[in-house]
Amino acid sequence: MNNFIFENTTKVYFGKGCVKEYLACLIGKYERNIMLCYGEGSIKKNGIYEEVMEILASTGKEIYEFSGIMPNPTYRKVLEGAEVARENQIGLILGVGGGSVMDCCKAISIAARYDGNVWEDFWERPGIIDFEPLPLGVIVTVSGTGSECNGGAVITNEEKKVKGGRDYPQCNPEFALLDPSYTYSVPKFQMVSGGFDTLSHIMETYFSEPDGDNVSDDLAEALMKNVIRNLRVAIRNPEDYTARSNLMWDAAMAENRLLKLGKRTDFQCHQMEHQLGAYTGCNHGAGLAVLHPVYYRHIYRDGLVKFKRFAINVWGISVEGKSEEEIARAGVEALAEFIREIGLPVTLRELGVDESVDLRAVVDSCVSMQGSYRKMTQDEINKIFQEVQD
Amino acid sequence: MNNFIFENTTKVYFGKGCVKEYLACLIGKYERNIMLCYGEGSIKKNGIYEEVMEILASTGKEIYEFSGIMPNPTYRKVLEGAEVARENQIGLILGVGGGSVMDCCKAISIAARYDGNVWEDFWERPGIIDFEPLPLGVIVTVSGTGSECNGGAVITNEEKKVKGGRDYPQCNPEFALLDPSYTYSVPKFQMVSGGFDTLSHIMETYFSEPDGDNVSDDLAEALMKNVIRNLRVAIRNPEDYTARSNLMWDAAMAENRLLKLGKRTDFQCHQMEHQLGAYTGCNHGAGLAVLHPVYYRHIYRDGLVKFKRFAINVWGISVEGKSEEEIARAGVEALAEFIREIGLPVTLRELGVDESVDLRAVVDSCVSMQGSYRKMTQDEINKIFQEVQD
Repeated sequence: MNNFIFENTTKVYFGKGCVKEYLACLIGKYERNIMLCYGEGSIKKNGIYEEVMEILASTGKEIYEFSGIMPNPTYRKVLEGAEVARENQIGLILGVGGGSVMDCCKAISIAARYDGNVWEDFWERPGIIDFEPLPLGVIVTVSGTGSECNGGAVITNEEKKVKGGRDYPQCNPEFALLDPSYTYSVPKFQMVSGGFDTLSHIMETYFSEPDGDNVSDDLAEALMKNVIRNLRVAIRNPEDYTARSNLMWDAAMAENRLLKLGKRTDFQCHQMEHQLGAYTGCNHGAGLAVLHPVYYRHIYRDGLVKFKRFAINVWGISVEGKSEEEIARAGVEALAEFIREIGLPVTLRELGVDESVDLRAVVDSCVSMQGSYRKMTQDEINKIFQEVQD
Repeated sequence: MNNFIFENTTKVYFGKGCVKEYLACLIGKYERNIMLCYGEGSIKKNGIYEEVMEILASTGKEIYEFSGIMPNPTYRKVLEGAEVARENQIGLILGVGGGSVMDCCKAISIAARYDGNVWEDFWERPGIIDFEPLPLGVIVTVSGTGSECNGGAVITNEEKKVKGGRDYPQCNPEFALLDPSYTYSVPKFQMVSGGFDTLSHIMETYFSEPDGDNVSDDLAEALMKNVIRNLRVAIRNPEDYTARSNLMWDAAMAENRLLKLGKRTDFQCHQMEHQLGAYTGCNHGAGLAVLHPVYYRHIYRDGLVKFKRFAINVWGISVEGKSEEEIARAGVEALAEFIREIGLPVTLRELGVDESVDLRAVVDSCVSMQGSYRKMTQDEINKIFQEVQD
């Protein structure tokens, strides 16, 4: 294994009833003013808002609500939230939602305390290490991003047309409450795209050097198989608690830094999808579903050993009568078939990206990542986008 | 998955050269007086002592040495260490060694600050939660116990003839330096018994309910296969860095609490071995090797689903023409065969436990654990010990 440093400071409370059991106790130690952040109102429909508010009311804390956090949260929203936090001497940010809410909260937790230019100093350049953001706690209602167990926050800067983020250890939530039954009411498409986001996080780490014997790759395969199996169960029965709890913990495990240990990681596909998202606002997991197979068809020959292993160990591809290349390719096609099976889009058109979008601008804004088996040229990125148009 | 709470506060620095790179910086923030703890002198032979002392000298800290920590560290040694720590206003305990040194250091870190009866209040009963022990950092030189990433400390009370310990989160080392090349000089028998200790930690968690679809069990299988594969490589070539680094990280992963999430855990075999160790001082990993197969032959019918899965997924047992029970049993026998292959003892006689040991007293001191598929009676524990005598 390559050298690494690992720590993860988030304390996780997992399981049915965990919010009722622990939330009041957890927020006790923070200053009086708490900023409750959430999205566009789904938590008001599924009863989670009411449950949380009742608990918060019992604590005697002062609650300041900040809502309307959108999918692909914007830098403008971050600055707006930071203003609310400053004005009200907030002592704890409490995010209730999925990845977008959590990411926006992390960015707010920095912006509320930082006097310089947050975008330039934290998002454009590797940022300040010894900075203490506002404390953050999260209640996860949609799983997929794994944002609950790291310091990463993906934010869209609308003016610059850039979507991106970095993992700042100091932005790890201090506590994360994960109740799998909170995810029952997530619509099927959201659940599936969240599950695919998790799978993508694992693949983007797995498909990178070194490819020698490595604990992280073995764990990655175990988690990929768990996601695939449990996503199928959750599609058949959205209230299967076992499946929902596995998917929820898979999401956290995929992004709590463990799988990256000793690996370079790729994240080329994420980078391309982020830019597609910055220009179109498309669903993140669905965008990844469109791009992954075609990207892998471009690079699998360069990472043949690992793609072959993926085919055999994750998809159970039989090796008989096949060349190494054929085995590897069969794994990529099994992934593509799985994407169709779970009902995610396989073309840009299915994703809702039509001719009105300036695809050339999207391509030009993409950046070639370091971890890939082969560094992408802008030309090849362009080909990838062309190949998935229809 | 069953409900759980998870946190792990240890910061890990992993890889060749990590001690040279980080140690001086890491100890900078602690009080001037540092207590350097180690075992019976192997670190003076392999050059690690010299390397560490040179780094410590450069920091201007005052170093107090406490050596002679034995395998199966005793409660007497703990109290002796606590006295040294108190007398010299120690600000950081720095343990250099394997599980015995780390466990002894954790117990010292409690005893140095606690005014009551440490054995009664921390080892006999579930101890005090809000207690702040002395800060501890560790440099691992023998891998296997995984003690570097948890708060567990197994201590032998010679007077009471009891060996035991609990995982106190506040006893997690603040930092752990893991340089796989430090383990090159560990004698083969020690390396193999350490590797088997790791495998045993994984199995004792895996073979417990619930047996439904569970992330932790998938991760356990991935780690077991990694241990088995890399132990074979390290036996052939003790200086294979890849194998040594995988084994070192397997050990930490097996005991950083992740595999236990959502599971009851068993640890019946560990409990029996601890008592065998308390009466005989035998090598821990070797003692486990003797007891595991025979214990599993007693319980595999009660945990048939999981033992069958173990046989197929970990040992690649073919299912053709076999009943469920035969498949499960074949997995246990594959484990027994592996123990012989790697040169660990399979009988008490081979372990060096002869007629002079009062086996009945060992049996009577064993406790039936909660997590097992079937609760052991003293009678059955007696049978287990009888069956492995010769």
